[in-house]
Amino acid sequence: MPLISLLTDFGLKDPFVAEMKAVILSICPEARIVDISHLVEKFDIKMGSFLLASAAPYFPNGTVHVAVVDPAVGSRRRPIVVQTPRSIFVGPDNGLLISAAQAEGGFHVYEITHHSIMRNEVSATFHGRDVFAPVGAHLARGLSASEVGRELTDHVKSPYAEPTFERRTAICEVIHIDSFGNVVTNLTLSLFHQLNLKPGKKVRIYVNKNRLAARLVRTYSDITQDEFGILIGSHGFFEVACRERSAAKRLRARTGCRLRVYGA
Amino acid sequence: MPLISLLTDFGLKDPFVAEMKAVILSICPEARIVDISHLVEKFDIKMGSFLLASAAPYFPNGTVHVAVVDPAVGSRRRPIVVQTPRSIFVGPDNGLLISAAQAEGGFHVYEITHHSIMRNEVSATFHGRDVFAPVGAHLARGLSASEVGRELTDHVKSPYAEPTFERRTAICEVIHIDSFGNVVTNLTLSLFHQLNLKPGKKVRIYVNKNRLAARLVRTYSDITQDEFGILIGSHGFFEVACRERSAAKRLRARTGCRLRVYGA
Amino acid sequence: MPLISLLTDFGLKDPFVAEMKAVILSICPEARIVDISHLVEKFDIKMGSFLLASAAPYFPNGTVHVAVVDPAVGSRRRPIVVQTPRSIFVGPDNGLLISAAQAEGGFHVYEITHHSIMRNEVSATFHGRDVFAPVGAHLARGLSASEVGRELTDHVKSPYAEPTFERRTAICEVIHIDSFGNVVTNLTLSLFHQLNLKPGKKVRIYVNKNRLAARLVRTYSDITQDEFGILIGSHGFFEVACRERSAAKRLRARTGCRLRVYGA
Repeated sequence: MPLISLLTDFGLKDPFVAEMKAVILSICPEARIVDISHLVEKFDIKMGSFLLASAAPYFPNGTVHVAVVDPAVGSRRRPIVVQTPRSIFVGPDNGLLISAAQAEGGFHVYEITHHSIMRNEVSATFHGRDVFAPVGAHLARGLSASEVGRELTDHVKSPYAEPTFERRTAICEVIHIDSFGNVVTNLTLSLFHQLNLKPGKKVRIYVNKNRLAARLVRTYSDITQDEFGILIGSHGFFEVACRERSAAKRLRARTGCRLRVYGA
Repeated sequence: MPLISLLTDFGLKDPFVAEMKAVILSICPEARIVDISHLVEKFDIKMGSFLLASAAPYFPNGTVHVAVVDPAVGSRRRPIVVQTPRSIFVGPDNGLLISAAQAEGGFHVYEITHHSIMRNEVSATFHGRDVFAPVGAHLARGLSASEVGRELTDHVKSPYAEPTFERRTAICEVIHIDSFGNVVTNLTLSLFHQLNLKPGKKVRIYVNKNRLAARLVRTYSDITQDEFGILIGSHGFFEVACRERSAAKRLRARTGCRLRVYGA
Repeated sequence: MPLISLLTDFGLKDPFVAEMKAVILSICPEARIVDISHLVEKFDIKMGSFLLASAAPYFPNGTVHVAVVDPAVGSRRRPIVVQTPRSIFVGPDNGLLISAAQAEGGFHVYEITHHSIMRNEVSATFHGRDVFAPVGAHLARGLSASEVGRELTDHVKSPYAEPTFERRTAICEVIHIDSFGNVVTNLTLSLFHQLNLKPGKKVRIYVNKNRLAARLVRTYSDITQDEFGILIGSHGFFEVACRERSAAKRLRARTGCRLRVYGA
């Protein structure tokens, strides 16, 4: 049973997502469709990239991921398909797909140029419906990625950076605020080890003009009412959290904020 | 594989939509269900009508569209089924279904009166679950529209009006503000031609006490940072847009606002 | 065709729900998944309990309901499966599942302890994805509830209370504010009969320092512009409503508010 995921910044009020699904089911009626999110902040390629890379590993082999955060729709930015060893990604060539694809190993990028796999009339403003959805549906039906057009090597890179280190301090970035208000950073477990910190100990953090001492914990319910906790979240990134309230609000932290984590 | 779409003003917090789906799958377990939108403004038949008419053309032949924006639930307003050459629409007789049906050609309207195709107990407050969902499911299973009850000729008409013209000026209406803040009007391409305007040129517009000169463009990324653009949107209606920000906020435009577009 | 429902407080922005679905479809590719709600207020077990108990009766026999409102994730709270005569519920042992299960008759509760039916790596923060989704998928594929672990008798009880009576006055609680602003109480039809009130008559109500006389009506459209109505809602509970506006806003009523309904 072919499986297609969708990720966009189209919101849930408008009929845009339904139109993509209707186009997909017109071409591939047996496709299963799973929404990853349609509440990516408008035009926020970095956020879309993070959500896609977070969710993709849990999908079965062979899933086709159609992702559209596309401020340059209708311009010369290219529509692409990315084939990895286990999945196919479809979307604009603006970096959105690359983090998720990289995590799956060596990948190939193809520019979508064949009009026979697009809708007959391609609007200038809605390639999600007129290009990416039909191409995703054809791929779900068995079209191979190399059949959409020629291979590209100059695709746009991932919008993410790894943390940098100044002696024992990691200079990180806030890559996501989740709906619980947890402040997700780009600091992974392996990098964290370089800081030589111990579970249960206070970790000194500097974010958005706030200095704080967060306790290194295992889970949200280990955090007491008034303190900040730092823990490894469910996608493998360190996050700053509070007990049943928003750490982001308390810190007035936003996506893109710099954050310093001091080592022991 | 039978396909059912759903459109309501029920929101996403409450279990109302899930109950409709549960009822549908109890009657027609193999049905595929696609949500068009459940964030229609409460009781806004005009907005629901626009979203339904926008999305319906992209669904395959044979789709059953169940739409419920129903301020008069439980009163004498009639429940209806509308059969077009390619689809079936199910919902209240308040105009909601008519724009979408008209676009598909000659249609027939039937009043739902047979209790055997409703839930055993019909509540006074939730016909979406107790009438429209089960009728939609029976239609998806193969019941013909004429079997739901007698044909009607006095159904409520579409809530939409076409623009009117005063010499070279089109007097339009804002029919939708999408989640990007684009201001969608009821001005279609064929009517626009009457205004004799040229791509790239400034178009004079008067909306909500604002005069503005919007440039006629092809796509959102053609608009520069500070200007307004006017372009034909993905559903064939002209819309006023800004570059990566909300035109509706800048103009304080709302659905229902009058808008004058001056010809050359 | 196995049917799985999902209810969480995870919201719609993050990829959490998609990851649960991806895990389910990896284990049980033929499962149909229906979202009940993901907009339960964060950590609000009572609200989650109400929404689940409202929706569950409309699902077909054999449905597996996976529900996650789980402030104590990663602590010692137990993961459980509840088998009723017609459905299976999966979630944390915090009362969330019990109202819905009770309504289906005698039920058995099992603690989930077998690691072979969880994801290989169970995070400390996301049991929705790592425990409840895979267990739900295995149950949907035919695993019996008693195979997940040993039976429990000391499970946490339902968070709900019935109204109490002081002579002819029912002391009720607001159990839900729906998205239309209707104020849903825990007063059921059978209890209401004890108040000896008549249709069309005024009912005296005291809520949140407001005294009001609400007319007992059958449906929302029976309420006139300025009055309050009281009616039996679509889930069998009495609710206070206004005509096309929010009764909750007018009364500043919130979930958990006390409400007195005076008998005749």
